[in-house]
Amino acid sequence: MIIDPWGSELVADYQRIIKEFGLEEFKADLFPEPNTIMRRGVVFAGRDLGIISKCIKEKKKFYALSGIMPSGDKIHFGNKMVVENLKYFQEHGAKTYILVADLEAAATRGVTLEEARKRALEFHIPAYIALGLDPKKTIFYFQSENKDVMHLGYEFAKKITLNEFKAIYGSADPSRIMSALTQAGDILYPQLEERMPGIIPVGIDQDPHMRLTRDIVSRVKSKGFFAPSSIYHKYTPSLDGGLKMSKSKPMSAIDLPEDPQIACKKLTRALTGGRATLEEQKKLGAETEKCMVFEMYKQHLMENDKELQKRFDDSKKGRILCGECKQDASARMKEFLEKFSKEMEKARKNIDKLKFIEFK
Amino acid sequence: MIIDPWGSELVADYQRIIKEFGLEEFKADLFPEPNTIMRRGVVFAGRDLGIISKCIKEKKKFYALSGIMPSGDKIHFGNKMVVENLKYFQEHGAKTYILVADLEAAATRGVTLEEARKRALEFHIPAYIALGLDPKKTIFYFQSENKDVMHLGYEFAKKITLNEFKAIYGSADPSRIMSALTQAGDILYPQLEERMPGIIPVGIDQDPHMRLTRDIVSRVKSKGFFAPSSIYHKYTPSLDGGLKMSKSKPMSAIDLPEDPQIACKKLTRALTGGRATLEEQKKLGAETEKCMVFEMYKQHLMENDKELQKRFDDSKKGRILCGECKQDASARMKEFLEKFSKEMEKARKNIDKLKFIEFK
Repeated sequence: MIIDPWGSELVADYQRIIKEFGLEEFKADLFPEPNTIMRRGVVFAGRDLGIISKCIKEKKKFYALSGIMPSGDKIHFGNKMVVENLKYFQEHGAKTYILVADLEAAATRGVTLEEARKRALEFHIPAYIALGLDPKKTIFYFQSENKDVMHLGYEFAKKITLNEFKAIYGSADPSRIMSALTQAGDILYPQLEERMPGIIPVGIDQDPHMRLTRDIVSRVKSKGFFAPSSIYHKYTPSLDGGLKMSKSKPMSAIDLPEDPQIACKKLTRALTGGRATLEEQKKLGAETEKCMVFEMYKQHLMENDKELQKRFDDSKKGRILCGECKQDASARMKEFLEKFSKEMEKARKNIDKLKFIEFK
Repeated sequence: MIIDPWGSELVADYQRIIKEFGLEEFKADLFPEPNTIMRRGVVFAGRDLGIISKCIKEKKKFYALSGIMPSGDKIHFGNKMVVENLKYFQEHGAKTYILVADLEAAATRGVTLEEARKRALEFHIPAYIALGLDPKKTIFYFQSENKDVMHLGYEFAKKITLNEFKAIYGSADPSRIMSALTQAGDILYPQLEERMPGIIPVGIDQDPHMRLTRDIVSRVKSKGFFAPSSIYHKYTPSLDGGLKMSKSKPMSAIDLPEDPQIACKKLTRALTGGRATLEEQKKLGAETEKCMVFEMYKQHLMENDKELQKRFDDSKKGRILCGECKQDASARMKEFLEKFSKEMEKARKNIDKLKFIEFK
């Protein structure tokens, strides 16, 4: 099985993924004070998590890094989970990096470097801050300004053959090759100053980049890089029950930002675990484990574990019905989206206070 | 037929090359005051030479560009011909660029960027100046410092498929792809400031880079780049009669620099057009067109056309025999190598006066 980080073919069976790609299954007790998605199994796997756990517990240096693709004017719930994990590591001692992949956006999304830069500053970075990233503790850089990253990409190019690239990515065209090698450069860049473990929170579709980078590290042993660790969260499923929210089904996907009214409308149309009739549901309870609204509670809308458990139980036992439950979800979604927009505005006003690496 | 610019498979039949790659045959009357290798058919082909001719005659802006690969501590007679052509265009109005391919050297030749930089400054650039490049009229830059070139490479990556790359280069591995796309960036870089025709003097083995760059230009039409022109010189043949001097046959190749005594020894062992016996040679004359020593006169050791013609005639008619002729060649080679070393020393002392582009 090959996962294509640029494609739309998706993978559903998380257990199978763990096995096939040799991932570690994620156990919430690995890290102190796990965050919501860690506790609830939404974070489901990783690579080399032990060393990160050790860094946290022994207060040793490590870094967390994520990239922003500054095209478009929407992000999605997958980004929210990345930020939640970043925030977790940031709060637990990680030197935190956000790179703006303006070079990649310019190369693959048809925006100019200037547009990409503008979008990052006006939307993507404020959005990440609105989702919980601490701007004071985050180091930002623009990929296009970072010669060291480009040099690393160049250097790494000779460490990988075309066939190996194809084996990892399923295909290989020049643009993907350059982009992937640059990403490997980004992932290892924080180690240029000082070798240290690092963790990259990603969706499972980004795992090929992790494998490439880890392969490269093993081939430049003399450089002494730590192989980057990674941590994977599940997709936020499509509201119609599909594996992943997708732009191709706009009624089943909620973007960030989204007009709260439209978002609520989408939620009320979501696939639930409801039975054919009210009578039946009161009697049998819902099939909550199949309910997309419950999934939204679990991943995004209900912070408190006890409250979530109660909702599950109430739903299973028919004590709460879909109408009421959806109304609650809509109210929470509205509140979340409004807060998101407000926080984003605030972050936008302070954008000139961010710490960008200045390259000479 | 595919020519591999990284390989050692060589091509002998220049007429066939012209036909197969759709080159223009070079005619010495195209340019005013053609240089020695142009007049003598050592320069044998080009692409889009008409526009360069027009620029020269109408005093319009154009550029000439070449790259230095700063690995090793030797260059060869092929580099000498590149410099002769560069010098020609420089003297005829071209804005002249020399890029130091330190990034490529670091990626493919196992030197660090620092070493590559040092070697360029201590050897390769002084050698180019010793061969006739006017340092005052030349703009230099280090590839590794030139973000614009890297950005262009990135942008161009999406304009070419893997199969197209393979069709041009015969093979495609990630390192070659990055290197070739960066070269395309270098070739077009002078046009970022202002669109204008440009000419790249190269050996025929570098033609794939020209085709790639020209293909890319035709695919980014909206950018308005001029397709780069190119001009090709023949190889300096191996002294044993092979197509090209090669490191694998050190006794048949003269490097720059080379100990004059050793160079002369190599020359005296060269394959000539001499006959089996002195008697025969005096009677029949030599087969001068097969003589490697004469080829060295033609390409490198005898500036004056009349003198060259006389030597050819004398040789053909048996009026000069191989011993005397080789002695003359050796004396000229010695003089050339000594002058080269002296000029290089001089250039080295003035290295801090060069105009390097300073990137912010």
